Amino acid sequence: RINSDRLWDSLMEMAKIGPGIAGGNNRQTLTDSDKEGRALFKSWCDAAGLSMGVDQMGTMFMTRAGTDPDALPVYVGSHLDTQPTGGKYDGVLGVLSGLEVVRSLNDLGIKTKHPIVVTNWTNEEGARFAPAMLASGVFAGVHTQDYAYGRKDLDGLTFGDELKRIGWVGDEKVGARKMHAYFEYHIEQGPILEAENKQIGVVTHCQGLWWLEFTLTGREAHTGSTPMNMRVNAGLAMARILEMVQTVAMENQPGAVGGVGQVKFSPNSRNVLPGTVIFTVDIRSPDQAKLDGMRARIEKEAPKICEGLGVKCSVEAVGHFDPVTFDPTLVGRVRTAAEKLGYSHMNIISGAGHDACWAAKVAPATMVMCPCVGGLSHNEAEEISKEWAAAGADVLFHAVVETAGI
Amino acid sequence: RINSDRLWDSLMEMAKIGPGIAGGNNRQTLTDSDKEGRALFKSWCDAAGLSMGVDQMGTMFMTRAGTDPDALPVYVGSHLDTQPTGGKYDGVLGVLSGLEVVRSLNDLGIKTKHPIVVTNWTNEEGARFAPAMLASGVFAGVHTQDYAYGRKDLDGLTFGDELKRIGWVGDEKVGARKMHAYFEYHIEQGPILEAENKQIGVVTHCQGLWWLEFTLTGREAHTGSTPMNMRVNAGLAMARILEMVQTVAMENQPGAVGGVGQVKFSPNSRNVLPGTVIFTVDIRSPDQAKLDGMRARIEKEAPKICEGLGVKCSVEAVGHFDPVTFDPTLVGRVRTAAEKLGYSHMNIISGAGHDACWAAKVAPATMVMCPCVGGLSHNEAEEISKEWAAAGADVLFHAVVETAGI
Ligand SMILES: NC(=O)NCCC(=O)O
Ligand SMILES: NC(=O)NCCC(=O)O
Repeated sequence: RINSDRLWDSLMEMAKIGPGIAGGNNRQTLTDSDKEGRALFKSWCDAAGLSMGVDQMGTMFMTRAGTDPDALPVYVGSHLDTQPTGGKYDGVLGVLSGLEVVRSLNDLGIKTKHPIVVTNWTNEEGARFAPAMLASGVFAGVHTQDYAYGRKDLDGLTFGDELKRIGWVGDEKVGARKMHAYFEYHIEQGPILEAENKQIGVVTHCQGLWWLEFTLTGREAHTGSTPMNMRVNAGLAMARILEMVQTVAMENQPGAVGGVGQVKFSPNSRNVLPGTVIFTVDIRSPDQAKLDGMRARIEKEAPKICEGLGVKCSVEAVGHFDPVTFDPTLVGRVRTAAEKLGYSHMNIISGAGHDACWAAKVAPATMVMCPCVGGLSHNEAEEISKEWAAAGADVLFHAVVETAGI
Repeated sequence: RINSDRLWDSLMEMAKIGPGIAGGNNRQTLTDSDKEGRALFKSWCDAAGLSMGVDQMGTMFMTRAGTDPDALPVYVGSHLDTQPTGGKYDGVLGVLSGLEVVRSLNDLGIKTKHPIVVTNWTNEEGARFAPAMLASGVFAGVHTQDYAYGRKDLDGLTFGDELKRIGWVGDEKVGARKMHAYFEYHIEQGPILEAENKQIGVVTHCQGLWWLEFTLTGREAHTGSTPMNMRVNAGLAMARILEMVQTVAMENQPGAVGGVGQVKFSPNSRNVLPGTVIFTVDIRSPDQAKLDGMRARIEKEAPKICEGLGVKCSVEAVGHFDPVTFDPTLVGRVRTAAEKLGYSHMNIISGAGHDACWAAKVAPATMVMCPCVGGLSHNEAEEISKEWAAAGADVLFHAVVETAGI
């Protein structure tokens, strides 16, 4: 078993970097806090004897050598970046548990046949730069590096410039590495494991996603002196689309979600009807037909809603992945590890997207999950127990070592 | 008649300060641009021989002496501040036409019995600091100066600090001045005069207003891994309230409006259901019963909508004035002036709030209006013709001189 105290202490140490305002973290990608977090993680990896490679997307690959010079590495990782009001575990648990696997192997003096590479992917959250899982997406060949470098945050700063600014443009060509396998350990970010009272989620699938960004153009006008029948009200159109998205998601139950996280009114003044409203829609389902059906319906109904109000509607897909099926052999190893260790477990579908979803395109991949309190994530109040953290790390350890071979 | 070229040139000169992004202006109150605009206006007033008084709200009172030492002044003014994406005429036309009245009197060598005070009220728009008409509100005794000084913009800067920063805290006690009469000339900001093909609006009333600021508290959570039935979705509640406000306004036709100009999601991230949504509602009617009825209904239905979603709802009134009836004698003088000058005219109710609404609490007051293209205002594309501008200024000139006495 891994060293649960050491894992927990590292989690708490990392959480000191980029503190939030309510006990969580604001360590968004490519900020000064991200830079600080990377330096701390590197110092721990150095102490554990790992050698570093960094690719041109800034992803950190920290390698523990294997005994077979011809064996491809087993990768284990997640991300250290957070939401603007994020928790202490989302992503971080996976990276530091990867490190804990290596530290435990060091303690035990065990050498593996395949190298093990602890990985910190850049910009998993997609909060500052859409889409999410950006670096792993370039790694898997679903985005070009130019596309990624050009992504802009709300202040208009680009990914490429910000990566350079924090000094983490590596020299490795992105995606040049070949993987024997990829493992990712993550908190569930949903309520199921806790409700079912299970310690381990054996992740068989990940639901697919569309992120749609709407730009509605109305007519900026005075809220007081513009009669109701002369308004071209982009705000009202947004409200109706938001309600429609809710309806579409509800009509696709069970196994679908839909919601709006970001809204921007311009000029955003109390006594001005907005000239422009930009907002994002996030729809997901593990069922490909449902997912695409929801998208089609939203893209058909939204323009109709807008037309009725005289509002111009344009929509751009800014994020997407199809539902993912993880590698059955690796999934089996996770299940076997949980059984051997005596942890209660169940199959689960990931509700959130993860770097594992892109890694699965280029290598056998899977995930391990632990519960989180109240299913709450993307919230500073996100919480897990030390025991939950340790159980998943134990399972990860066994599945990774089984795959890396002794 | 006034000098229409000089008036137009001054309007175009002022429009160079705080340029917008689409041909209009961003000269929000207490910004560096506001400071620059004040300096330009002062230089013109100096050249016209006016003496300056400034009160503790930063309002500028530029006096042309009268011949009777005991006669109270006739005030004529409006505001030089603009919306973030405002037009070149909203407010500015009233201030610079006041100046033009004085310049024309100088040209003609006419002395009036009552002094004439050209006035630039601070923060009429209420865009940066709610509520609107803040300085005239303190002047009329409806707000305390402490309340006004404590108002915050979106960056948390206070009115008091910003007024000091731009160097326009005057020494006059606010409201100490007594007015013989108050005139304000303004673009209509609505479509009626243009549609009716009238040059002059004789403003008999102004509709009343409530500004309500809603704070909805939901549960910040992951948009992907949070099942629909576990969401506490403050964004959805906002959408439903926005639709309800629309319904309430439509059910109070004719003679009522309702809309939402400002929305703020927190944390405003694509994959996070908002924990908090703050937004503003603007409802208006010239009919006191309708106005109060709409407010009561919105404040009754919004919490019900929120309750159904588990969202916490709080609402604060951040702006209010009752419908105003302007002084019949002054209104009559505006009508007579239009007739004498041969300008087509009609009675009109102001859809927007104006400093005249507060001035009416402490003195006989009224307004003059000219059409604006397409009724468009609070939009950089706001437009009027030189002839429209001049007609209203002519009417203002005659009504003011009639009231100030020769
Ligand atoms: N795990 C996680 O929250 N990833 C961010 C991408 C997503 O929204 O699913
Ligand atoms: N005239 C004008 O636009 N004033 C701002 C206050 C209001 O919203 O009516």
